[in-house]
Amino acid sequence: MEIFVSIQLNKRSSLPLYQQLAQQIKNLIFESQLKPDEKLPPIRKLAARLGVNNVTVVNAYRQLEQDGLLYSKVGSGTYVKPYPPSRGANALTVTPPFSGLEYSIPGLNIMDQGQLHIPSGSYNFASAIPTPELFPVADFKQILNEVLDRDGGSAFAYQEGQGYFPLRESLSRYLKDNGIGADESSIQVISGAQQGIDIIAKSLLKPGDFVITENPTYTGAIAAFKSRGARIVPAVLKEDGISIEYLQDVIEKYRPRLMYIIPNFQTPTGICYSEEKKKALLKLCQAYNIIIIEDDSFTDLSYYTQRLPIKIMAGADKVIFIKSFSKILMPGLRLAFLLAPNNVIPGLLKAKHSSDISTPGLIQRAFDLYLRKGLWEKHLEYMKEKYQQRYHVMLEAMTNYLPPEITYSKSGGGLSFWLKLPAGGSSNHFYTRCLEKKVIISPGSLFSASDERDSEYFRLSFAGLYPDEIVKGIQALSEAYEYRQNQLLARNSYSPLL
Amino acid sequence: MEIFVSIQLNKRSSLPLYQQLAQQIKNLIFESQLKPDEKLPPIRKLAARLGVNNVTVVNAYRQLEQDGLLYSKVGSGTYVKPYPPSRGANALTVTPPFSGLEYSIPGLNIMDQGQLHIPSGSYNFASAIPTPELFPVADFKQILNEVLDRDGGSAFAYQEGQGYFPLRESLSRYLKDNGIGADESSIQVISGAQQGIDIIAKSLLKPGDFVITENPTYTGAIAAFKSRGARIVPAVLKEDGISIEYLQDVIEKYRPRLMYIIPNFQTPTGICYSEEKKKALLKLCQAYNIIIIEDDSFTDLSYYTQRLPIKIMAGADKVIFIKSFSKILMPGLRLAFLLAPNNVIPGLLKAKHSSDISTPGLIQRAFDLYLRKGLWEKHLEYMKEKYQQRYHVMLEAMTNYLPPEITYSKSGGGLSFWLKLPAGGSSNHFYTRCLEKKVIISPGSLFSASDERDSEYFRLSFAGLYPDEIVKGIQALSEAYEYRQNQLLARNSYSPLL
Repeated sequence: MEIFVSIQLNKRSSLPLYQQLAQQIKNLIFESQLKPDEKLPPIRKLAARLGVNNVTVVNAYRQLEQDGLLYSKVGSGTYVKPYPPSRGANALTVTPPFSGLEYSIPGLNIMDQGQLHIPSGSYNFASAIPTPELFPVADFKQILNEVLDRDGGSAFAYQEGQGYFPLRESLSRYLKDNGIGADESSIQVISGAQQGIDIIAKSLLKPGDFVITENPTYTGAIAAFKSRGARIVPAVLKEDGISIEYLQDVIEKYRPRLMYIIPNFQTPTGICYSEEKKKALLKLCQAYNIIIIEDDSFTDLSYYTQRLPIKIMAGADKVIFIKSFSKILMPGLRLAFLLAPNNVIPGLLKAKHSSDISTPGLIQRAFDLYLRKGLWEKHLEYMKEKYQQRYHVMLEAMTNYLPPEITYSKSGGGLSFWLKLPAGGSSNHFYTRCLEKKVIISPGSLFSASDERDSEYFRLSFAGLYPDEIVKGIQALSEAYEYRQNQLLARNSYSPLL
Repeated sequence: MEIFVSIQLNKRSSLPLYQQLAQQIKNLIFESQLKPDEKLPPIRKLAARLGVNNVTVVNAYRQLEQDGLLYSKVGSGTYVKPYPPSRGANALTVTPPFSGLEYSIPGLNIMDQGQLHIPSGSYNFASAIPTPELFPVADFKQILNEVLDRDGGSAFAYQEGQGYFPLRESLSRYLKDNGIGADESSIQVISGAQQGIDIIAKSLLKPGDFVITENPTYTGAIAAFKSRGARIVPAVLKEDGISIEYLQDVIEKYRPRLMYIIPNFQTPTGICYSEEKKKALLKLCQAYNIIIIEDDSFTDLSYYTQRLPIKIMAGADKVIFIKSFSKILMPGLRLAFLLAPNNVIPGLLKAKHSSDISTPGLIQRAFDLYLRKGLWEKHLEYMKEKYQQRYHVMLEAMTNYLPPEITYSKSGGGLSFWLKLPAGGSSNHFYTRCLEKKVIISPGSLFSASDERDSEYFRLSFAGLYPDEIVKGIQALSEAYEYRQNQLLARNSYSPLL
């Protein structure tokens, strides 16, 4: 009952109370605060708690049943409907189509780049970047012109290697508004998060050093670490973050220098670390003098509970925090920043210099003005709303059309879902099936921190698709799956698996 | 005592042990690991720690005392001398202004960055970038707006990692107009020449590999190579390019993988390679399978004889050609490209991905349109005229005002002159003298490919100064020189040297 305390109903809203209530219960389910098969409060009790008529609760529960989110047992009560569990188990041929750099897909992660073929007119669930009509082009054009009128040629001169000072000022203010104390001298402007990871690797790693990463993870980071001759220790991910027991083991064994993690809406799994897990991690890394790199692209896209970065926590002063604006503003800007302990900054600056000297001045100046005018916050609100809508459409489409043996969980944020084929299924193989239906998925192997060449998992991102495309795409994906199943059955296979 | 752990003495070196030791203590002082007035370890203790005779330490300390870096108190020990060095202690004390990253000078080479102090109102001969009023801001603003109107949000999406295709088309046409056949697939767009060098190092070098560079050279390149764990073989420069005899020797000895050269208006010397030298180089590198990196920033600034890149020659298909537009267009754009053999391109693309994914799309699109409209050629003509004028003003000022013992040669192009103090002179010291007169020079040590900490040479760039400032600056520099000479004469020094 405690979790229902958070429910707020507004009697003056134009939205009927039962719909408000249904929406908020839905959120609790999406955030996994209500677990599968968990019993909901009895109607009278909840109505009394919220100060509404019983019929409001009845209607809310009924709508959620219709939405496939709840079920009721006669004489017992109402329950959260579980996600379809995987059935049976069996093996299938692994067909790894992913080698070489043959193609280039705008918006894919670095290691994805060039590894998937995208026919035109596809439902591209591989791209995690916004559709371009969401970009604030008009605002940005206005800002660029203002900067050019104001600064003239200076906008095109070299900037300070650490970043245009007024921008670092604005970023410092932005961080303070988000609860993170940081002065300008701790901020390094970078040409995108990838460069941040790269210069950290350059300045802090020696060949042979060990780096812990989540597994699966963003493999662009792995590429940067490996390019320094570092060795990767892939850490097992549980549903609330890295397994601490495993971590303790590998730390003892390898004495790693760095740990690279994405604690909120992790790429690709969507996992959010629990507060306990974050604390345990921090403590462990402090004890063993391991620098945590916290990659934060998605915290701003918390659709329900607002997630918070590790960097905000007490004792996180040694954490290097990388913040990218690519996914929410415009990826082609190539602008991000990192916040690092003062003793690390000179090395990072040196590495930045030897990488590209400085980030283009015009872009830094424009983004500074964009922040100062409050346009970033405005745009963030707008994007969050758009993305949240796509998140819901996607969830609904998956609920309606996906075969029950394909499972997934709800992260409540970010731009993707992480799905699982029945045990033994091959997402590489499924990728090929989907391609025939013009659906592009990202097979799990693209995110492997180890040498795994295939996986039961795949990622679907909804950022780059319009709502109607999302629905059609999920339908097509389901057809690809069913078609394969039927083929297998026709061939008299025992296994109903892909 | 702990910081002395880092000291490594090599008994097989041709350099005496006490000199090796002195050099390394000097470095500790320059790096501020030893602070002013800090006490050095007692002679016996340090000798025991390093496993050398006491006399080695005695001699090292004595030499550093003579250099004005240490002082001793009778019965107490030896201490680090604080800056500024007390007058009269020694006439030719080296005052190393080059430690730490304290300052940032727009337009200086990467390794220069932050190493010189520029008071406001100075005559800054250290910066090799144009004064901002020369930037084509109005044209570029117009172009940016056209691109935004034409492409909308696509201008801010990710671009192909290899570069926006139409830009590669334009660059290919530009190259053909300049006599270099190149199709789009051989071109990689980069965020400035520095990034080009960095991704070449990333994709082609392994730790321990040898790279030949000119000495002196652009030390941003050295930083990128060293960051990969490569070892530098500094090649002697004659007035028509690298010494072929020396080259043959070091190639036999080290079997280097790459050679990095700036064959036209070399940084910092302004040297242009003769045609014979270029041919000999190409032949040698072909025979030993060494990839030449040709860095070309200045060929377009040939004021008399039009110089040509090596890449244009027969047999240069294995040369990687880097072309920067920074010095002529606008350095803050961070845009350049490289032309590489087809078998090298995939590796470069991968390195580019792991560095920053792609160069900002808006800038690529704008520069493409700039080329297509013929604005580049128009601007180049304009800049060449402006720079040529400054070149002449500079030459005249030097002829009129410089004391005859400061010598230089005329390169006939580029943006700098390379000057030489009388034999035995210290350009580090002269830097300090000039600073007092608000003249900023680049001492030769900033361009050293070896570990040389001082040099008789210094560079003066005229790109960032207006003609009248050039004249006043050269006058002030001459005063700085004369003043010093008079001081020395007054003290009855034998040496007429700075």
